[in-house]
Order: sequence, then structure tokens, then C-alpha cells
Amino acid sequence: MDIMEMLSSLEDLENRLFALRHALGVLNLDGVTAAPKGSSRPREKTVGILAGEEYRLRCGEGTRRLLEEMEEASPRLPARARRQVHELMRDFTRTSCIPMAEYTEYARTVSIGSDVWHESKEKSDFASFLPWLEKIVETGRRFALYRDSGSDPYDTVLDGYEKGLSRSQLDPFFALLRERLVPLIRAIGEKPAPPAVRGFYPVEDQKRLTEYLMDLLGLDRQRCAAAETEHPFTDAFSRWDVRITTHYHTEDMLLSLYSVVHEGGHALYESGIGEDLQFTCLGRGSSMSIHESQSRFYENIIGRSEAFIRRIFPVLSELFPGEMRSRFPEDVYRAANLVTPSLIRTQADEVTYPLHVMVRYDLEKALFDGDLRCADLPGAWSELYRKYLGVAPSCDREGVLQDSHWSGGMLGYFPSYALGSAYAAQMFETMKKTVDVEGAVSSGDLSPVTSWLRERIHIYGRMLDPKELLLNAFDGAPFDPECYVRYLTDKYSALYGL
Amino acid sequence: MDIMEMLSSLEDLENRLFALRHALGVLNLDGVTAAPKGSSRPREKTVGILAGEEYRLRCGEGTRRLLEEMEEASPRLPARARRQVHELMRDFTRTSCIPMAEYTEYARTVSIGSDVWHESKEKSDFASFLPWLEKIVETGRRFALYRDSGSDPYDTVLDGYEKGLSRSQLDPFFALLRERLVPLIRAIGEKPAPPAVRGFYPVEDQKRLTEYLMDLLGLDRQRCAAAETEHPFTDAFSRWDVRITTHYHTEDMLLSLYSVVHEGGHALYESGIGEDLQFTCLGRGSSMSIHESQSRFYENIIGRSEAFIRRIFPVLSELFPGEMRSRFPEDVYRAANLVTPSLIRTQADEVTYPLHVMVRYDLEKALFDGDLRCADLPGAWSELYRKYLGVAPSCDREGVLQDSHWSGGMLGYFPSYALGSAYAAQMFETMKKTVDVEGAVSSGDLSPVTSWLRERIHIYGRMLDPKELLLNAFDGAPFDPECYVRYLTDKYSALYGL
Repeated sequence: MDIMEMLSSLEDLENRLFALRHALGVLNLDGVTAAPKGSSRPREKTVGILAGEEYRLRCGEGTRRLLEEMEEASPRLPARARRQVHELMRDFTRTSCIPMAEYTEYARTVSIGSDVWHESKEKSDFASFLPWLEKIVETGRRFALYRDSGSDPYDTVLDGYEKGLSRSQLDPFFALLRERLVPLIRAIGEKPAPPAVRGFYPVEDQKRLTEYLMDLLGLDRQRCAAAETEHPFTDAFSRWDVRITTHYHTEDMLLSLYSVVHEGGHALYESGIGEDLQFTCLGRGSSMSIHESQSRFYENIIGRSEAFIRRIFPVLSELFPGEMRSRFPEDVYRAANLVTPSLIRTQADEVTYPLHVMVRYDLEKALFDGDLRCADLPGAWSELYRKYLGVAPSCDREGVLQDSHWSGGMLGYFPSYALGSAYAAQMFETMKKTVDVEGAVSSGDLSPVTSWLRERIHIYGRMLDPKELLLNAFDGAPFDPECYVRYLTDKYSALYGL
Repeated sequence: MDIMEMLSSLEDLENRLFALRHALGVLNLDGVTAAPKGSSRPREKTVGILAGEEYRLRCGEGTRRLLEEMEEASPRLPARARRQVHELMRDFTRTSCIPMAEYTEYARTVSIGSDVWHESKEKSDFASFLPWLEKIVETGRRFALYRDSGSDPYDTVLDGYEKGLSRSQLDPFFALLRERLVPLIRAIGEKPAPPAVRGFYPVEDQKRLTEYLMDLLGLDRQRCAAAETEHPFTDAFSRWDVRITTHYHTEDMLLSLYSVVHEGGHALYESGIGEDLQFTCLGRGSSMSIHESQSRFYENIIGRSEAFIRRIFPVLSELFPGEMRSRFPEDVYRAANLVTPSLIRTQADEVTYPLHVMVRYDLEKALFDGDLRCADLPGAWSELYRKYLGVAPSCDREGVLQDSHWSGGMLGYFPSYALGSAYAAQMFETMKKTVDVEGAVSSGDLSPVTSWLRERIHIYGRMLDPKELLLNAFDGAPFDPECYVRYLTDKYSALYGL
């Protein structure tokens, strides 16, 4: 094959992979939004078949030949194609080492496992989920060994979410957080807690708030839409079709507000990826930590800032006149930044949040190392919550069953949240050198902030590795978790008068 | 291959075809409901790729060999497999005679043509749609000749929607309708028209009406969901996942009410197809006319009956207390059956409706016969409306641009609506011999009606040809359009005191 033929075959392969991912994404989105409750049977069937097609396409003999030939011709390829081949080869290697039968069996396991988890969570019945979790953990470990028999399996799993990530990097990271945040949380705990802004917030009015927030974030409504789901998430089918979801709680509008701003950060990332990377494997976020850095940047650094609350307060007053009548921006600002040890990760404040993640990180390591059996998870969970946060769940729904990740096979994902938060803090520190962030937020025009992130991160999609993107975003400095600790300490010392 | 291998290959083929149809259906549904407005680019791409996969699968060499081998082994095959092979072979023949390049080009044409039509309709600008319509008609005619060079191309197109249907059957059918309905409409026109029940009907309350109607129809809400679109339709991804859509007009709740009951009829059909036919080419309605017979049965014969209006009136009063306060069931019944020559087919009453269809039938024949150029359609449209209904549109949006069908390549579809209505009337006449239809409607338990249709039609999917289903549904009698004329004459003579 000459170069032109190779490039055309590559484009064809990418198009077909895009179409399958797109279809699978829409099937999932429809399944958790519009589809009738009893429709899982046809959906599971179709998802199984299309996922099988994707496996065959990704690992087929034709793909292997094409990628090998293109690797050989690599120096003569345009930069984009070289990167595509690199990424597709990584996928090929990671996937093809797993026997097709085990791969499909696993897809089935996590599909049923997710359904079982939903029910188990509802009934707070860990026992019914246990056999599926055991199978998922066992398979996750086995696959990691298929992928790299010479490495620590948990490292292999981490590397799947962020190239090069390992426990040798994460252990000191979490140790630092623990060492510095536990005393901070304790000091805050000695101060009086600000009152919450609970009340009654009708869903229809919260929907209007979602619209407003999306506009404020600068999301292009022609390309980005919002829906309602049990668990908020973001998915993107190219930069021209980005979806976020949220969940409305009538007693507390802050929960959906921060879901929207969080998912909005993911959405800005996806909608800012370069046009030339669309419909290829490079047209996505670079890693899960980088993705979370964007969502948590908007959620916390922007969304929980005083300037942001002041900016949106008039809209809150208009939408919820009864609830806001006797409140001031300051009250909402303090309520949005209430620090208190709690049980549910997704509702945790900025300071205790990484400790929630650390619990999961410790447990995953122990599971992979064989130091902990799945059956003993509930006990171990309570013990670590008590140790790090001083609280323990009274039932498994508020404990080990709260997150969907494990049921979907996402072992090793959680560290991305903490790492992303830390990246975001260092981006903020770097950004402030050239951008008047507070001024942008106050004026309601976030474009200087978004442009900064766009130019240094979004636009590149997967063209660059996370490490290279971080160099862009940190002005060439290495990653320094001290920035994160400093950001939290400064912000909350001021807020709580420490 | 032995029989078992053949059956297993057949199942595999059917599963893959099902998955593609399912994915394409959900992409379309999402596109017209939840997707952001500017997201057509990725969707068109994915739809193009998946439709190409479907073509390759349907017409591939492997499929041809399998179907031929199975045709040979036909006597030894189980009945269901025999029928599957028959249907798939029909698809194969109809599709594979068209060169792949022309097929994909056509898919592109109707995809863009649909978008152009939407805009042309909005601006009432026929000229911008004309070149696309010309291309669609020319291709439709060319494809018909590929499919059967020895037959009249319009007959070939009709046969695509209902096996064996031809103009030699439709010409006398429409002639009869014209001869008998035009005088009826004229007689009705001399009587005073009942007042409409217009007013202000909030969308949220109409949504509650939709919920109520779906329950009343006996749709299983675990398997059937409703959404909102510009143009109402039904799609089904197996009997376990059926979707209907409606459009709410705040000034007239009857429009959405009858959309829901109409689409509900389609949905009952799809959700009643036998379990053993699911995920195969037999797990769908037998033909478009049969499908429309079910939707128009529920919409008109059930939904526009006096018993139905009396049954739902308390709910209407509860949902729309202001608008219903000074009204009686009789008023709503008469408003729902107001007969008057009008311009828009989808809003036409039961009696003038088939004349709207006849206009389109006449025009399609003339286009296919070369007696009419697309450019002359607006004039010919007005002329026929004046001739059959005594009214003419003042702009193309209310005339030739009103329906989506042609822009989507659905030439020859319209007769299904009139034929379906006539089938429904004869089913009603037959059903009444053993079922107390009025009693069922009055009691709010439609199950005797639905069971009757289920046993004679729904359950069979495509196992039987339309003609065989009609024998079931007419107690062995031949199709007799006089039933339809009689039904309309009796009902409206009583209503208008003729």
C-alpha cells in the first residue's frame, strides 16, 4: 500500500469506529433518559452485537496489518496519522491480548452487574451484588495480567485511564493530601457551620437554572443539550453533539447546580477539541484525569467562588424568590462551601472530597493485592471512612454501594477525580498570571478562562499525552500537588477564619 | 451446511440486522427529540456508515449464498425460518439490483433532501426544494425499473409498501370513494357546523392527558414511552421497546389527543407481535396499510366514537376545568367529528381524509407516468384540491410542501392511509359480530377489542402476507371498500341529521 491508500484505509477504519461508538453512546443515553423501564432486553442485545463488531474492528487481522504497515511507514506519515496509529495500536494491544470469548463474557458481566447493582443499591443489599463484584474484580485483575504479565496489575489498570499513571505516583500524592487536609478539616470542624440553603426548589425552575448556567458557561446550545438522569454524566458524539445530564433534588438546588457546572466543564472540553481531530480516536479527552481537571475546575474553582455566586445570585432570586428572600449572596457562598465530613462522595465538599477518593483507592489496591476479599468490603469501607473522615455509613447504600463505577468495571478510575482536582488547582495558579479570572467571572463573560484552557488543553484532544498537556497548562513546570493543598488551605482558611 | 448450521447463520444475520435497525432508529429518534439542533453532521455521518453496513449485510455475497442454500432446503426448514428466508430474499432482490454507489447516493439525497424540505416548508419556498424533489422522483422511478423492468414503475413502488398492491386495485378504490364521499361531504356542508373546542390547553396538562390515554389504550408503560416531536410517529425496537411521539398545540388539545390515539394504535400492533418473531425480519408490521389500519382503527373508530368521548370527558374536565366548564360531552364529540374541506391532511376529518390522499395518489401517478413535471406540482396540487375538496392553498407550505414523505423518498406511501382506513372499517364490521365494542369503550376496558386485533393480526408480525391477515380479520370475506363508505355514511348521516 502507498501512503495515500494507507491514509484512506485509516480514515475508513476511524469512521466505522466512530459510528459504532456514536451508536453505542446514543443507545446508552436513550436507555437512561427516554427509554421505557422494561426495554433493557433489546438494548442489551444490540449493545452486545455492536460491541462485538467494535472488538472485531479494533482487533481484526486487517486492522493489525494496516497498523503495522503504517508504523513502519511512520516517519513518512503526517503528524495526525502518526498519532492515530500510535493510539490505535495501544488499543489494539490492550484489547487483542484478551481472548474474544473472555472479552464478550466480561461485557455481559458488567452489563448485568450494573443492573444488579442498581437493585442492590436500592435495597441496600450488598450480598446480592457480591458475586458480580467478585467476578468483575477477578476479571479486571486477570485482564491486567494479560495486558502486562510483568507489571503490578493495579498499575496496569491505572495506566488504562491515564498513560503512565502508577501507584508509585499516587501513594505520595494521597499521603500528602491526607497529611495536610485532615488537620485542615479538623480545624474547620471546630468553627460553627454555616446554615444550608435548603428549601423547596421546583424542578421546572431548576431546569431554567440549568439553561442559564449553560449559557453562562458559554456552551454553544446548538451543539450541547441537557437531559435528566439518576446519575449525572457527559457524553460527546463529536464536538457538534455534546450532552450533559443532571439530577434534580427539590430540597436542594445546589446539587443540580454543581452537577451542571461540573458536567459543563466536561462539555466545554469536548466541544473545544480541534475540528481536524473529529471522527478519529484523537477527538476525545486525553485522559480521565485531564477530563476531571476541566470539570472540577469549573465546578469548584469557578463555580464555588464568591464572584460566581455574586454573579448568579440575581438569577437565583428571580427563579426562587421565596427561598432567596431572606438570604444574601454571602449565605449561598458559604452554603456552597460548607466543609463537613460526610458519607456520599458526589455530594462532598471540595476539602473532604479527596479523602472519599482515597478510601476507594486504598480499597482497590487491597483488592488487587489480594489483601482484601470483596466479601469484607463493607467492613473495610466503614473502617477507612472512620479513619479518614470520622464518620461511618449505617447501611451499604450510603457506603460501598453508593458509586456505579465498580459495577461497570471501572476499577482504577477514582484516583482521576482527586488528580483532576489537583491539576485544576495548578492550572488556576498558572492561569491567574495572565488572566483576570475573578474579573471574568464577575462580568459574566467566561471566555478569557475558557480560551486559556482551550488553547492549552481542549484543542489538542488526544494529540498530546496528559504529561505534555500539563506542561502546556503549568507553563512548563512539573505537577506540584502543593498547589492543590495551598489552594484549599488559603480558600478555606479565609472562609472559616482560621 | 446442515440445517442447524444454516439456522444458526440465519440467526446471526438477523441479530446483526436487528442491531443496525435498532441503532439507526434510536439515532433518528434522539435526533428529533433530545439532540441539539446543530448536531446533524455527526449523525448524518454515522447514519451513512451504519446504513452502508446494513446494505452490505443485506446484499453481501455471504447472505446471498446462505439464502440460496436455505431456499433449496426450504421444505426441511421450520415454518418461521422458511418465512424469514422468503422475506430476506425479497429484500435481497429489491436491494441488490441497485448498484451500491447509486444506493448510497440516494441515501445521501434523501437525507439532505429532508433537511432542505424542512427549510423550504418553513419559508414556503417550493423552488428551493424542487431540484431535490426532481432527483428523488427520478431516482425512485429508476430504482423501480431496476427492480422490475417489465412492470409499471408506480406499481413496483406500491408493491414495496404492500405486497401485490397495484393501481389496478387502487384506481377503482379511489373512484368509489370519490363517487360516494363527494356528495356526502356536500350534504354535510349544507348543515350548520358544530363549534370547535378551541381555547388554551397548557402543554403540561396535555402531557398528563397523553399518560391517561396510553393507559386507557392498554399500552404497557414498561415497554412503551412517549416523546414530543414536530411530526408525530411511532417506532419500535422489538415488542419490549415501543416509542410514540406527539406534538402539542396549546390552542387545540384534540390535535395531540388524536395523534396519541393514532400512534397508540401503531404501538399496540408492534407490542403485540409474537415473542418468537422478535429480533427477526418478521418482528414488524406486515405492511404499511395494515399498520395504518390499526392506527386509524384506534384514532377514528374508537377515538372519535361517542362512547370514547363520554369515557374521557371527566378526565378532560379535570385537566382543563376552565375550557370544559361550559361544555358537554356532546360538544366535544361533535367538535372531534367536524367535517369540513380543509388544506392539511394530518388535521383532516375522517370523511374528507381519503380525498386528501387521492390528490397525492393522482399526482404520484402523473409524475411516474411522465404526465407531470415536478416544477408544475404546485399548480396541479391546487387544481386537484379545488376539484376534490373545493379549496386551494394560498401558499406552498399549506399545499405541496406540507408532508414530509416525498422528501424522505416515500413515494407510493400515501395510499396506505386510505387503504388502512378502509381495512379498519371492515374490521370493525366483522369485530362487532362477536365483540361489544361500544360496551368495551364505555367501560374503559379496551382489552376485548385489542385481543381481537391481536389474535387476528398483531401476533403474526410478517409471518403472514397482508392478504392472509385480512382474511383473518374479515372472517374469510374479501376486502370490500363498501364497508368503509357505509361506515362513514351511517356515522355522519346520524351526526349531521342527513
